Amino acid sequence: MFSDRFDQLVQALRILPSVGPKSAQRMALHLIMKNREGAIGLAHALNEATTYIHECSVCHSLTENEICDICLSHERDDQILCVVESPADVMAIEQSGSFRGKYHVLGGHLSPLDGIGPEEIGIPYLVQRLNEGKVAEVILATNATVEGQATAHYLVEATKHLPVQMTRIAQGVPQGGELEYVDSHTLSQAVHNRMRMK
Amino acid sequence: MFSDRFDQLVQALRILPSVGPKSAQRMALHLIMKNREGAIGLAHALNEATTYIHECSVCHSLTENEICDICLSHERDDQILCVVESPADVMAIEQSGSFRGKYHVLGGHLSPLDGIGPEEIGIPYLVQRLNEGKVAEVILATNATVEGQATAHYLVEATKHLPVQMTRIAQGVPQGGELEYVDSHTLSQAVHNRMRMK
Ligand SMILES: [Zn+2]
Ligand SMILES: [Zn+2]
Repeated sequence: MFSDRFDQLVQALRILPSVGPKSAQRMALHLIMKNREGAIGLAHALNEATTYIHECSVCHSLTENEICDICLSHERDDQILCVVESPADVMAIEQSGSFRGKYHVLGGHLSPLDGIGPEEIGIPYLVQRLNEGKVAEVILATNATVEGQATAHYLVEATKHLPVQMTRIAQGVPQGGELEYVDSHTLSQAVHNRMRMK
Repeated sequence: MFSDRFDQLVQALRILPSVGPKSAQRMALHLIMKNREGAIGLAHALNEATTYIHECSVCHSLTENEICDICLSHERDDQILCVVESPADVMAIEQSGSFRGKYHVLGGHLSPLDGIGPEEIGIPYLVQRLNEGKVAEVILATNATVEGQATAHYLVEATKHLPVQMTRIAQGVPQGGELEYVDSHTLSQAVHNRMRMK
């Protein structure tokens, strides 16, 4: 439609998650008709971000420097390490404001059928971090999926010999969750892990 | 989160229509973690599109050239001119495959309270195009909003002296529209404009 470069822009916008052909067209038209300055700014931000953002050499989260702000912070507790699958999980936990320790990003979960074993998600490197002796508790915050659970269990086994406490984030009914809409697996977990109130 | 450039990318993505703070974060993480090449391609497409796409000098739709492909086409009927508010409308009508004439994009609708009169949406230029004598029918395809209707009525008045047939796209119940979900104004229009079947 209109021109080759318009169609190329529509195609390029399709790489964004949950943007289908119709929204990509609407976005392209919006940028060209109503916000060219914004479009140029977005192009710049994309180039900057892809050039300068990379993995933190300590925790494997994202940073523009050698080591990320969280790893460098003296205000965060070195003794508690939260293990997650991805930087998206770091972001989610940070935004919940519920954690003031440090992180370790695995970059995935165990998935033997896809050839992803302990080496591929850097478990030896995590064990080495724990070996340094600073960490007293590891919070296993891998996803509550089959693979995330298996990865958590594997980590408990792999660190058996270390004097480190291993905990797992709680599973249950989400805040505001109406029971009739909660899936039955979650519900059965919630009943099984029920907590004493009195 | 993570770094300044990450936050700048999230902010820059917010200019996209119907992208809120949460989706912008998800998009930024997706691009950085899973598709850097796509992100660089998107930056390039944005720069190219904003540099090379502009208004067609004849119909005021979008093109990379002086005159757009539709205006230049010899396979399209010069005698029927479809008047729309924006290039988005040209796109919608082209994709419906229902029209093989030429277009005229007003670039808006009359809105006296906002200081948008006939001059601002180029009605003198449209009248001049019609004065050339090639066009036999004008299809008024401005939006079915109060302003779009007013603009269509104004155009009928402004071209009264010209030997040009003026038609308006039909209004009624949309294809597949279940009556109970159609708004009552549309429904009353549909009853009023009912068509004889026998
Ligand atoms: Zn770090
Ligand atoms: Zn044109």
